[in-house]
Amino acid sequence: MHADPSNPPAPESDHLYEKVADKIAQLIAQGDLRAGERIPSVRRMSSQQGVSIATVLQAYLVLENRGMIAARPKSGYYVQPRRRVFPPEPAMSKPAPTATLVGMSGLMGRLIEAVNDPAILPMGAACPSPQLLPTQKLNRILASLSRQAGNDAVEYDMPPGCPALRRQVARRSLDWGCSLSSDDIVTTTGGMEAINLCLRAVAGPGDTIALESPTYFGILQSIESLGMKALELPSHPRTGVCLETLEGELKRQKISAVLSVTNFNNPLGSCMPDNHKKQLTELLARAEVPLIEDDIYGDLAHHGPRPKVARAWDRQGLVLLCGSYSKTLAPGYRVGWVAPGPRFLQKVKHLKYTSTVASASLPQMAVAEFLQNGGYDHHVRTLRATYGEQVNRMCEAIGEHFPSGTRVTRPAGGFVLWVELPKSVNSLQLQDDAMRHRISIAPGPLFSCQQRYTNFVRLSCGHPWSPRMEQGIETLGRLAQEQLDSRARAGAGAAAA
Amino acid sequence: MHADPSNPPAPESDHLYEKVADKIAQLIAQGDLRAGERIPSVRRMSSQQGVSIATVLQAYLVLENRGMIAARPKSGYYVQPRRRVFPPEPAMSKPAPTATLVGMSGLMGRLIEAVNDPAILPMGAACPSPQLLPTQKLNRILASLSRQAGNDAVEYDMPPGCPALRRQVARRSLDWGCSLSSDDIVTTTGGMEAINLCLRAVAGPGDTIALESPTYFGILQSIESLGMKALELPSHPRTGVCLETLEGELKRQKISAVLSVTNFNNPLGSCMPDNHKKQLTELLARAEVPLIEDDIYGDLAHHGPRPKVARAWDRQGLVLLCGSYSKTLAPGYRVGWVAPGPRFLQKVKHLKYTSTVASASLPQMAVAEFLQNGGYDHHVRTLRATYGEQVNRMCEAIGEHFPSGTRVTRPAGGFVLWVELPKSVNSLQLQDDAMRHRISIAPGPLFSCQQRYTNFVRLSCGHPWSPRMEQGIETLGRLAQEQLDSRARAGAGAAAA
Repeated sequence: MHADPSNPPAPESDHLYEKVADKIAQLIAQGDLRAGERIPSVRRMSSQQGVSIATVLQAYLVLENRGMIAARPKSGYYVQPRRRVFPPEPAMSKPAPTATLVGMSGLMGRLIEAVNDPAILPMGAACPSPQLLPTQKLNRILASLSRQAGNDAVEYDMPPGCPALRRQVARRSLDWGCSLSSDDIVTTTGGMEAINLCLRAVAGPGDTIALESPTYFGILQSIESLGMKALELPSHPRTGVCLETLEGELKRQKISAVLSVTNFNNPLGSCMPDNHKKQLTELLARAEVPLIEDDIYGDLAHHGPRPKVARAWDRQGLVLLCGSYSKTLAPGYRVGWVAPGPRFLQKVKHLKYTSTVASASLPQMAVAEFLQNGGYDHHVRTLRATYGEQVNRMCEAIGEHFPSGTRVTRPAGGFVLWVELPKSVNSLQLQDDAMRHRISIAPGPLFSCQQRYTNFVRLSCGHPWSPRMEQGIETLGRLAQEQLDSRARAGAGAAAA
Repeated sequence: MHADPSNPPAPESDHLYEKVADKIAQLIAQGDLRAGERIPSVRRMSSQQGVSIATVLQAYLVLENRGMIAARPKSGYYVQPRRRVFPPEPAMSKPAPTATLVGMSGLMGRLIEAVNDPAILPMGAACPSPQLLPTQKLNRILASLSRQAGNDAVEYDMPPGCPALRRQVARRSLDWGCSLSSDDIVTTTGGMEAINLCLRAVAGPGDTIALESPTYFGILQSIESLGMKALELPSHPRTGVCLETLEGELKRQKISAVLSVTNFNNPLGSCMPDNHKKQLTELLARAEVPLIEDDIYGDLAHHGPRPKVARAWDRQGLVLLCGSYSKTLAPGYRVGWVAPGPRFLQKVKHLKYTSTVASASLPQMAVAEFLQNGGYDHHVRTLRATYGEQVNRMCEAIGEHFPSGTRVTRPAGGFVLWVELPKSVNSLQLQDDAMRHRISIAPGPLFSCQQRYTNFVRLSCGHPWSPRMEQGIETLGRLAQEQLDSRARAGAGAAAA
C-alpha cells in the first residue's frame, strides 16, 4: 500500500502522531540522525512503533512543516541540513559577591510600553503570542462560566482563593514530584504577586535575597521596591546557580532567603538538575534559610519529561513554591498561585488580603475549568514543541546574522535567549537603535543591579517565527556590527592621532 | 380624576418618581414632615413639582413600600411613626497622639473566612450583597466581551491599564469636582492595590502615615505589612478627621503622608464638608505632605448630590486619588484605579508592574462597558436609596435591641455602622459569642493599632434587611446585655465578699 502523503487518511489519535514526530525530532536534535540521512520508511516506522501508516504520515508531515525533514520523490524522507550550527554558549556568570541595593532607573519603561503596540517587533518582553495560546477556547469557557456563575462571579473570592483552581493545581503537583493538597495553595494575581507575597513573608527592608545572575528584571525591581538587597550569584546557562558559591556566602553573610527560577530560568534558560535541587534544599535546610522557588516556566520543557521542583525534596517546610498560567494559557487572565508551606501559609494569606484582598474570580474559574476539561496537557505538548522550534530558529538566525564572537544560550525549555555580544557592543545603545527600527529587545543591564551585562541582550522567542522576525534579527546583527565598526574606526583614529 | 393607586399608570420616567420620593424622604428625615402628619395630596404635589399624577403616585408607592408613609382611605397619605428614635451618635474619637507600629494579630482571619460562608449572617465584612448589584447584567456583558475580545483578553494589559476603563473613570471625574484625563489614571486590582501602590510611592519603612481613627483594618494591616507607622487622628462621625490636631501634629513630628477616606469613611461614616476638604489640601500643600485619598464610597451618598473629593482643591499635585467599583458593581471583578497626580504617576506605574504586572483584562473591559452603556447612574441611584434604607433599618433595630447607653453613627452614605456599646462590653468576646450564633461582626479593636475601641463594633448593612437580620441584631443585643449582667453580678459578688 502506498498512501498519498499530501492527503493522508485520519490518524488514530492526535496524540500519537505527535509522539512519533517528537521521537524523530529528538533523534535529529541529538545528532543520531544527521543532515542528508534517510529516516526510516513510513512502513518500517509503522511496524517498529506499532502505529498505523496514517499516524506516521501525519508525523512526517509535521516534521516537514517544521523544516526538519523533506520528502524526495520515490525515495523517502531525508533530514534537512540545518542552515548553520548554533553559536557557542555564554560561560557561567561572575557577579560581584556583595549584596547590592537594586538601583535601576526606568530602563524597563520602554520595554513594557512596547508590549501592546503591534507595530513593534516583540522580542523584548517575555510574552507568549496569543496565536500560540488556546485563546478562543479559554474565552469561550470564560463566557460560558460568566453566564452560569451568578453571584460567585461578583463576590469577593477571599484568600486562599478559588477552590476549583486550587484543586487543579494540587492535582498537577504530582507531576513535579510534590503532593500538594488544595489547602496548601493560595491563588494570586499572576506569578509576580506570588513572588512579592513570598518575599514579604520571609524578609523585610534591608534584608538580603540571594538569586541567580542574571535575573528577570521584574524580580529585581520588586526586591528594590521592597527595600531589600539582591545578592547575585554566579549561574551556569545549563545548570543554574553555583551551589558552592551559595554555600560559601551563607557562611559569610546573613541571607534571608534564596530566590530561584529552578526550571528554564529567565533569561538564562538554565534548568537545575535533580541532584542540584536536592543539594540546594538540603543546604538551605541546614542553614534554615527559606527558598522562594519560581516555577513559572516548569511546564515548558522542549523535549522529555516535565522537570521536578526543588520543593519535591523539601522536608522542613522551607520552600515557598510559586507558579502561574501566564506563559502557558493567558497572561491577561492574571492567574497565579503560591504554595507557601506550613510555616508561611498564614502569613502569605494575610499579605494577600492586605495587598489586593482577592483576585478576579472568573478568570480563575475559567483556568480551573480548562485544566480540568479543556485539554491542557495536549495544548502544552504542542506549545513545548513550538517554543522549542522557535528558540532553535532564532538561535540559528543569530548565528547567521550576529557579529562573530556572539554567544547564545541553548535553553531546554521556555522561550527566551540570552545573547552575549562582543565586549564592545553596548546593549543599551543597541536597544535605542533597535527601537528606531521598531524592534523591542531587553538590554542586559536590566538583569542585574551591578551595571553588568552591558554587552548582553535577552531576546524573546514567544512569537511564531516569520520572515519579519528573521529580518529583525538581521537588523539587530547589523546594528551591533555597526557599533563594532564605529568603535574600531574610533580606535584606529585614536591610534593614528 | 382619581387614579387607582394599586395600579398606577406608567410614570413619565423612572428617574422622575425617584426624585419626588427622595424629596419627601428628605423632608421626613429632616423632621419637616413628622409622624402622623399628612403629606401633600397627589394632585397638589403634581402641580407643585410639575410632574404627572402618575409619577407622584409611583413616588408615594415607593415610600409606602419603604414603610415611611401609609395611605388612609379617602383621606390621603400620612407619615408613619418611626418605630423608635435612633440611638445617639458616638463622640469624636480620641486616639493617643503617637505614631504606633501597627501590631494586630490574626484578628481579621475569622472575618474574612466568614465572607464566603452562606450559613453565617453577613454583618462582619463590608461586602455588598450581590442581590443589590447588577450581577446578571455585568456577567452578560463579560460573557459577550469574552466572545468578541479575542487576543485582547489573554494578553498582558500593561500599566497604565485598560484604556476604555480609564476613559470612563476620567469622564466621571467631573462629578467629583476634578477633570482627570485618561492619561492620569492607572488601573489596579481593586481599591486595596491602589492604596498599597500609593503608600509605597510616597513613604518607606519606618515612615509615619497619619489617618482617621477608627480606620478600616485592611489599611492598617497594609501599613503594618509595609513596615510603616500609623498616626491615628481624632475624627468626628459626621465631619471626619480633626484638622486642628492634624495641623499641630504636622508641626510636632515628621509625617510622610496623610491617608483619608474623605467620603463615607469606613467605619465612621463621616463625610468631610467641602470647606474641610479645601482646608485639608491647603494645609498639606503648605507642609508639602501628600494626601492619599480613598474615595471608594464616594458614589454612595444616601441622599443629595455626590460629594466632591479633596483632589478637586489640589493645586500642587499632592493628592493621590484612589477609587474602585467593589462597593457599587462587583467586588469579585477586582476593578480599581488610582490617579496619582503628575509627581507620582511614573512611580505608581512602576510599582504596579513590579507588584502584579497587570490586572485581569476582561473584568476591566466589562466594567468600562457597563459604565458607558449599562446604566451605571440609574443603578447607583437605586443602590444609594437601598443602602440608606438598610442603614436606617439596622439603626432602628439597634435602638430597639441593644443595651441602653448604646450609641451609633448616622452615616449619610455607604453601608456600615459604627456602634459604641456601654464601656464594660468587650467586643472581642462579643465577636466570639456572635460567631457561635453564626453571626459575623467586626470588633472595634481591629480598627485601631492602639488596643482601643474595645467596646465598639462595626456592623455592615450591605445585605437586604430581613427577619433574619432583625433576629441577628436582637441576638447581638442580648449577648451584649448578658456580658453587662454577668459583670454586674461579678461586681456585686466582689462587693459583697
